[in-house]
This record gives sequence, C-alpha cells and structure tokens, in this order.
Amino acid sequence: MPSPPSCTVEFRARYAETDQMGIVYHANYLPWCEIGRTELIRRLWKSYADVEAEGVLLAVTDASLRYHASAKYDDLVRVVTTLEQVRSRGVSFTYEILRVDEGGETKKLVSARTALIAVGRDGAPRTLPAELLQAFRTGTGES
Amino acid sequence: MPSPPSCTVEFRARYAETDQMGIVYHANYLPWCEIGRTELIRRLWKSYADVEAEGVLLAVTDASLRYHASAKYDDLVRVVTTLEQVRSRGVSFTYEILRVDEGGETKKLVSARTALIAVGRDGAPRTLPAELLQAFRTGTGES
Amino acid sequence: MPSPPSCTVEFRARYAETDQMGIVYHANYLPWCEIGRTELIRRLWKSYADVEAEGVLLAVTDASLRYHASAKYDDLVRVVTTLEQVRSRGVSFTYEILRVDEGGETKKLVSARTALIAVGRDGAPRTLPAELLQAFRTGTGES
Amino acid sequence: MPSPPSCTVEFRARYAETDQMGIVYHANYLPWCEIGRTELIRRLWKSYADVEAEGVLLAVTDASLRYHASAKYDDLVRVVTTLEQVRSRGVSFTYEILRVDEGGETKKLVSARTALIAVGRDGAPRTLPAELLQAFRTGTGES
Repeated sequence: MPSPPSCTVEFRARYAETDQMGIVYHANYLPWCEIGRTELIRRLWKSYADVEAEGVLLAVTDASLRYHASAKYDDLVRVVTTLEQVRSRGVSFTYEILRVDEGGETKKLVSARTALIAVGRDGAPRTLPAELLQAFRTGTGES
Repeated sequence: MPSPPSCTVEFRARYAETDQMGIVYHANYLPWCEIGRTELIRRLWKSYADVEAEGVLLAVTDASLRYHASAKYDDLVRVVTTLEQVRSRGVSFTYEILRVDEGGETKKLVSARTALIAVGRDGAPRTLPAELLQAFRTGTGES
Repeated sequence: MPSPPSCTVEFRARYAETDQMGIVYHANYLPWCEIGRTELIRRLWKSYADVEAEGVLLAVTDASLRYHASAKYDDLVRVVTTLEQVRSRGVSFTYEILRVDEGGETKKLVSARTALIAVGRDGAPRTLPAELLQAFRTGTGES
Repeated sequence: MPSPPSCTVEFRARYAETDQMGIVYHANYLPWCEIGRTELIRRLWKSYADVEAEGVLLAVTDASLRYHASAKYDDLVRVVTTLEQVRSRGVSFTYEILRVDEGGETKKLVSARTALIAVGRDGAPRTLPAELLQAFRTGTGES
C-alpha cells in the first residue's frame, strides 16, 4: 500500500514570529502548517494561488495543535505535511513540525491537524476540483 | 453549584487580521482567545503582565479550534472565556467567539479550547501561584 | 481656522504583538495607525468596510515611523490620528501613539505618517468618493 | 571604492501575509526587511540570535517605506539589503523588495529604509560590538 502524499519544507523562524516569552508565538505555527499544505498541493497539482484564481477556496473548519517544545528565533524548522483524508467536499492534513539542529538531528516541536472544506467565492460549499481529488488520491509520499 | 469563572470582551475585527479570502485569517482567532483569558485572569487576580513579571509564564500546550462561520473586517466580535479545569500545574479554558450584529443578535463564529502549563523563566514546569489557583477555584462567572 | 479632523482611540497592547525583545514588535504599530484612520473615517463618514463594499479601496503608498519609546504588553495605548492633507486622488494622515499611565500621564511612543491613494477593485487609481472628500474637507477636530 | 555590504534573499509571499485587498498587507514588508538585514549580519559576522544572546539588541528607531506595486500571495519575492551608514552606536540599511517573475524578470515593489541603535537588555543605548562594527566597515557587496 502506497504511503499517503506528503511533503517537507524547511525555513528559519523569523524574529517577527517570536513573543516576549522568547519563543515563537503559539498562533504562528498555523501559518507554517499552511506553508506545508500549499506546498503539498503545488507538488501534487499546481499553486494554490491558481486554485483560488479558478474560484475554489479551501477554508479551514478545524485546527488542533499539540505543543511539545518551543521553536526559537532563527531555528531551522522542518514541516512535514501528510494528507490524512480526502472526501469530495473536503480534505484533512496532519503536520509534524521539527527543529533541525546543526548536526541534522531533529526535535519534535508541534503536532497539528487541520480540516478544510472547498467553498466558492460566495462562501457556499462545493466539491473539490476533480483534478485535485485525483491528485490527492493517487499521489504518493516523497519516500 | 456556582458557574465557573468566565468573562466577556468585545472588540472589532481589524483589517490587518483579514486575508485575501476576505475574512479573518484562521490563525488570528488564537490571539483573540488570549485576550479573553488574560482579561479573565485580570478580573480574578491581576494583570498577566504582573504575573509574568514575577517569573510565572503560562505556556500553551494544546489548542483546538472549530470554525463555524467567518468574522469579517470591522465585525463587532465577542469572546466569552470560561475556565474549564484547573490543576496545580496547569489550567484550561474554553472560548466562544461570536459576532454581535447591530440589533444585538449574535452568531457563533468559533469554538475553541486551550490548555496551558505554568513554567518558570527557564522553561521548567512549576506550580501555579497559590493566589491564582485560589482565584480560579473560588471565582465565579459573571452572571 | 478650524483644526483638521482628528480622532483618538485607545486599546491595550496584545501579547501577540510583542517580540522577544520584550516590547511591541516595530511593524505592529502600522495596524494601530490603521485602526486610528479607519475610526476617523467612520466618524467623518461611515465604516471603511462600507467604503470598500462600494468598490473604493485606500491603498498605502508611503509610510514612515519614528520610534521614541517602546510599548509593552498590556500597556494602555492611545492613537491620535490627524488628517494631514487631502487631494482628489489621495489623502495623508499623521499619528501620535502614546502610552497612557494609570494616573493619566502620557508618554510619546511613536510618531508616524501614511499616505494613501484611492484605487478600484482592479487596482487602478481613481478619485476619492465625493462624500468622503467633502467629509475630510469640512470635518473638524475633536477639540 | 568597494560597494557597501549587501545581500539578497528570496522567498515566497505567504497566504497569512495577505489582506482582504488581495495583496500583501503593507505592514508585512517590515518583517521582510528584517529577514534581509539579519541575513546580511549573518553573512558579515554571525547569527543575530547569537548577537542578542550576548546582550546586544538592535532596536529600530526609524522606518520608512515607499510602496510602488503590490506583492501577491505566492509571488517569489527578492529582498536586497544594503548597509547605508554605520556609526559606533547605530546602523542604517536600505532595502529593495522585488517580485521575480518566472522568466527571471523583476518588478520593484517596495523601497524601504530602517535605522537601528544598539541597546542593552535594560534598553540603555550602548555601542555596537567592535567585531560587528568592523564587519560592517570592511565587508563588501556580493558583486
């Protein structure tokens, strides 16, 4: 059985993302998840910018995050996004957010999950584009 | 049995909080939850700024959000924060985020929950200050 | 000669707006300026949300900020917005951002200025709505 | 005469950085400038995280931005940061923010400038570390 579609992105935590606790502010992991899932969509199909341009918006309906350890400013961060479930009208993803140390060792920072539904420009639910459904269903993981 | 401590705050959604979907970006409800819980702490005890100045930080360990409807720019938003559970080392809150229309009618936008633990400046877990524990345990709801 | 239109808003600095320097992150004063100028537009005419709904967007073309002192988490902040100049296609505002201490004394934090032009949904420059121009030109300051 | 130290970074505009105007929110270019200047500091000396760990903070005292055109979600953005002036207690940088199109052509989006001073953990002004001063003064541009 093939592994579900997944992808990995890496970037550094920005100063603007920290708070006075000296760590990345807890809400700022959600945009990181979004970077992960839009990159997965790009690799499976095309830029999410193009998806939206065709009138299909993916709106988040549920989000949950478990914080294990804190990212700090300038940490090299890795987001591993995996397709969890796809249905005709929606899709869910899971995320592992890790810190990558100089030697390549990793430390788990945050586990997260988001569910999204497809809506039109008017906000009304609709089905996912057939090509995206197909890409989610036949895509396989990176390894 | 007394109702658990709760508090209500209201403010308008900011333009900076919207995204190109024309609605408030989904991550931006977490800072709204924080406004709610810090206001509850202020009413039960004192400013969370003073709590931190004494070396006690409340770090988020879990967050979950369910999005029912979207806040839009300039919407009058109401956040109702309720103490869910308090233990010696941590505390959890639930939130109802509502839109308040001109006539005073409300529409539920987001339900959320966060769990937090007390840590010191060094990040090590510690117990909640006794006065805060006491305030959480004896405080009652607004109504 | 009448004083130019101006308005004052007050709110508390949010935890989410701080950075690891322990102060409000420097970029976060621009949304505060926006809160000030949209409130001025509301008092002179109507909600900027309604202005946008009619197809007129005010896009920032220039912004400058001078930082005198730092806002901290939970500070009570006052933003005084004053109309600087209005032309048929654009408008500029100046801002004084102050901290208000418990006794009512104030400390100047940031002075800022932004210039905006009117554009349509397509991004093309256009003239300001006649009613808004009129409101800017005849409105007077709060005091 | 050598060209002043400068560096170039590229990344994609995030969805979280857009607003309901369908473009990147105007305040969000300041964090991009910060990515540029901290990368320049890294290349000339070391990570700004390490600079702060030694008790030297660079606080922004002035910022100005001119907006020529808008970045959109998923645009590939290039930030060119150039050292403008260095003194014993402060430093200023200029920034050119460009969009890079598929064919490699660029479009100027924003020109900006920030001035910073060195402060200690207590917020008191101090001199820049001698090594950083030296690095700024002898570093040369990328090309």
